[in-house]
Amino acid sequence: MTQQQEACSERVRGWWRTAIIDMAPGRIALRGRPVEELIGNVGLAEMIWLMLRGQMPQPGQAALLEAALVAAVDHGPQAPSIAAARMAATCGVGLNNAIATGVNMLGDVHGGAGEQCAELLNDIAARIDAGAPLGRAVEEGLSDWRARRGRIVPGYGHRFHKPVDPRAPRLMALVRAAAAEGTVSGRFADIGEAVQASVGRARGAPIAMNIDGATAVIFCELGFAPPLARGLFCLSRSVGILAHAWEQMCQGGRNKGPMPPECLPLHEEGGTG
Amino acid sequence: MTQQQEACSERVRGWWRTAIIDMAPGRIALRGRPVEELIGNVGLAEMIWLMLRGQMPQPGQAALLEAALVAAVDHGPQAPSIAAARMAATCGVGLNNAIATGVNMLGDVHGGAGEQCAELLNDIAARIDAGAPLGRAVEEGLSDWRARRGRIVPGYGHRFHKPVDPRAPRLMALVRAAAAEGTVSGRFADIGEAVQASVGRARGAPIAMNIDGATAVIFCELGFAPPLARGLFCLSRSVGILAHAWEQMCQGGRNKGPMPPECLPLHEEGGTG
Amino acid sequence: MTQQQEACSERVRGWWRTAIIDMAPGRIALRGRPVEELIGNVGLAEMIWLMLRGQMPQPGQAALLEAALVAAVDHGPQAPSIAAARMAATCGVGLNNAIATGVNMLGDVHGGAGEQCAELLNDIAARIDAGAPLGRAVEEGLSDWRARRGRIVPGYGHRFHKPVDPRAPRLMALVRAAAAEGTVSGRFADIGEAVQASVGRARGAPIAMNIDGATAVIFCELGFAPPLARGLFCLSRSVGILAHAWEQMCQGGRNKGPMPPECLPLHEEGGTG
Amino acid sequence: MTQQQEACSERVRGWWRTAIIDMAPGRIALRGRPVEELIGNVGLAEMIWLMLRGQMPQPGQAALLEAALVAAVDHGPQAPSIAAARMAATCGVGLNNAIATGVNMLGDVHGGAGEQCAELLNDIAARIDAGAPLGRAVEEGLSDWRARRGRIVPGYGHRFHKPVDPRAPRLMALVRAAAAEGTVSGRFADIGEAVQASVGRARGAPIAMNIDGATAVIFCELGFAPPLARGLFCLSRSVGILAHAWEQMCQGGRNKGPMPPECLPLHEEGGTG
Repeated sequence: MTQQQEACSERVRGWWRTAIIDMAPGRIALRGRPVEELIGNVGLAEMIWLMLRGQMPQPGQAALLEAALVAAVDHGPQAPSIAAARMAATCGVGLNNAIATGVNMLGDVHGGAGEQCAELLNDIAARIDAGAPLGRAVEEGLSDWRARRGRIVPGYGHRFHKPVDPRAPRLMALVRAAAAEGTVSGRFADIGEAVQASVGRARGAPIAMNIDGATAVIFCELGFAPPLARGLFCLSRSVGILAHAWEQMCQGGRNKGPMPPECLPLHEEGGTG
Repeated sequence: MTQQQEACSERVRGWWRTAIIDMAPGRIALRGRPVEELIGNVGLAEMIWLMLRGQMPQPGQAALLEAALVAAVDHGPQAPSIAAARMAATCGVGLNNAIATGVNMLGDVHGGAGEQCAELLNDIAARIDAGAPLGRAVEEGLSDWRARRGRIVPGYGHRFHKPVDPRAPRLMALVRAAAAEGTVSGRFADIGEAVQASVGRARGAPIAMNIDGATAVIFCELGFAPPLARGLFCLSRSVGILAHAWEQMCQGGRNKGPMPPECLPLHEEGGTG
Repeated sequence: MTQQQEACSERVRGWWRTAIIDMAPGRIALRGRPVEELIGNVGLAEMIWLMLRGQMPQPGQAALLEAALVAAVDHGPQAPSIAAARMAATCGVGLNNAIATGVNMLGDVHGGAGEQCAELLNDIAARIDAGAPLGRAVEEGLSDWRARRGRIVPGYGHRFHKPVDPRAPRLMALVRAAAAEGTVSGRFADIGEAVQASVGRARGAPIAMNIDGATAVIFCELGFAPPLARGLFCLSRSVGILAHAWEQMCQGGRNKGPMPPECLPLHEEGGTG
Repeated sequence: MTQQQEACSERVRGWWRTAIIDMAPGRIALRGRPVEELIGNVGLAEMIWLMLRGQMPQPGQAALLEAALVAAVDHGPQAPSIAAARMAATCGVGLNNAIATGVNMLGDVHGGAGEQCAELLNDIAARIDAGAPLGRAVEEGLSDWRARRGRIVPGYGHRFHKPVDPRAPRLMALVRAAAAEGTVSGRFADIGEAVQASVGRARGAPIAMNIDGATAVIFCELGFAPPLARGLFCLSRSVGILAHAWEQMCQGGRNKGPMPPECLPLHEEGGTG
């Protein structure tokens, strides 16, 4: 028994067991592959896939994942995550803290729509697998979603981009092309568009698929579990968060608030008591 | 040797050694005192002192600490930490995540002025201990500060509260009263006011002591290390952060940005590239 | 129209409206009270109450709140929030970032039990208000909870403190004393203990009320909304998080991981793919 | 004047000015390029470059950036950032909060070595530009660094990977190949290796270049400002943080601490007081 093994029992080492990485002095293997063989030979999107899934993707799969990651990098300083990261960048914290501040806000409402949409799409797919035709599976899936989760159908509609979010049709065209090549099945594209049509009929006016809906279609086509729809969105939006935090650092400022300092919040009587 | 000891070697247990808490099933001792004896018998300010210092404070010491903690709870939604916490509260994260978002921003610029002021006051005190009279110690301390740390003397002046930050004179009066009672020495109050006078002379106009300066005087009088000036400020401001995050939750909203959604950031050419 | 009003329209100022704080240069009012009148005259627990509720508490109410806040300050480095804050303190971030790291982890599982227990207690109280006797209200409330939220009844049992969490009986004794004095009604103490008895019967063995259960009783007695049970816990635990982060800074270390560096995580085949 | 312009003055809109993104309903342009033209046509590494720099990179530049981003994705659960993210994943927070917890820890010590190394390399390059030969520029740069920043030369040596960090020689070979093709100048590779030799001579034993040193060479060759060395590292390590948080979610667990629950931290007398 070596000193190292004495210092740290199997029980403790097992507490931190992982299949992702295997290390020894001078050796790093990620998902079983020596890191020096990955560097320069695989792209960042492939690396993300490998780390999350354990195997390398096919080139067409990696391309589709990469398109989704590129699509969601930024939506400007009206987004609370971007604004908060820019404010943090003026408060005397590190760039990593500014990024974390932004990512921390990508919660159920701000960053979770893709995950929720993926849950919905998967639920409808399961209904089809159980024998329901597409139309009925969509109606039952939507009905069940509204009963359990509320009025908002995640992945559709945008308070700003009306009538069309320009990212969605481009992403959907890439999914259709990948399906034509056999890279993906295209079933989630069908489901996603059937949901879009149904939601539009229900409200009596067409509704656009948004970025969360389109990326959810892609992540489902590629076989990612719904929580990873949010996880992948975080990786993607981190790019914009970093770019904005860095731009703010270059612009300067100290303790940047949400409004110019000469503005004062309106005071209201009463309140939460 | 018990199974527990086998599972976790001394080396591992020592990795997490602490003098703050000692536990066994059914027993919790904080700084050597059973928790059930503390509950209901010590105040929150005393508990903060005990946890940070290892012993109980005298009543006058606890009262002065409590006054400083009360003074800094909030400075409104213009402060980036408060605004960010309110925005986070609309993004579908827990109240704990909203609080963390705010506290995370209390960095060197936003929350660090008290710590920096405490460093300055301690440096001047050390010069006095080494034999310099107050006036010379202040001038040399300020001169050295400006050479090493820049133009801004932390703890003095306020971009909004002109000419006086109403919290500072009240806190300083409490320090003077505590010194008269023998609770503290009053030397840091002397130093703090001498710094204020010197900075005012240097700029040719009186300058106010601000909340960071006044609380730094108190924390130095009470013997807290400078980094704890920031730590204690974080505890204090957490109160306001929580109050604002909660008010925002009650007001509602989804993905609240820094401006109403109909506003768009100005686009500028060029940029950081 | 002043320059300030021109710079920032009512629409923008209203976007950040608040009833918590009202400021003008040289003036800060918290919940309508000038800050300089609060400093030195109200305790930290009273201040927390004022900020969250809008009015000052009675002395007995403040004392009960303070007891709950003192009780939950720390549970040692086995708690992920404390361990993470200590690790962060060795990574070259500010003390505020270390605190935020810990608070950020007080999520639904780690810090949410008090909030969930408060929801359960309030639900049972509503059944009583609607006419059900205590016993039936408890059984129906528990049954409904288990159907909607799962097997675990929050606020009862502890994986470490068996058979008794020493904090709970002490807190409950304070509630009973406050009820005897008329400070609180005591109805949530009754409900909490009835739930404890019912859960014990269901599992065929007595179960202890834990810190989350006991503080939930107090927060309900005092009229705090359930989400504030988590919010108040965050304030309380922040004290321990700060104490541990600071102790770690004093101990030193760089990039402290969960185990001594000579330990290696066990590598396992397969994984999440 | 439209209602929108009335609601939000130029002063307020200018407060959030940005050159990164330009939006209108139905239109998103990133650095002047319509997002739908970017999706599917540029890779993630190119997108990162475009967002941070304002223009598209040459293919060889993008490939070198991508190699650096792939190299640093993970270093296992001994790293505090990875361990903390895994612990957070068991505390009932969102996957975004778990990622933020990890990124928040990539501070001056844990994630800042690349930034610091880039500062050192740039300082030496400036000395060469001012006329010093390589050898003297390195000695003077190192001497100045040690005087101002301390004993540790960032980017060299590794407490675990001895004698060689397998990522560094692979990355340096890619830099040399890119220099041979004219993609980069290769001057920072020369400087980086001259620093390595000098540090080795000073300690009387060869020292390895580590991942921070090798990626700093790349980021300097590509013209990124030193703070972006940390920013880009955060993007890269976010991949590993996500993979580990997700693996932990799949493994399950509640409130995972740093050691198995049967372990108790060693209690020590005395402490920080």
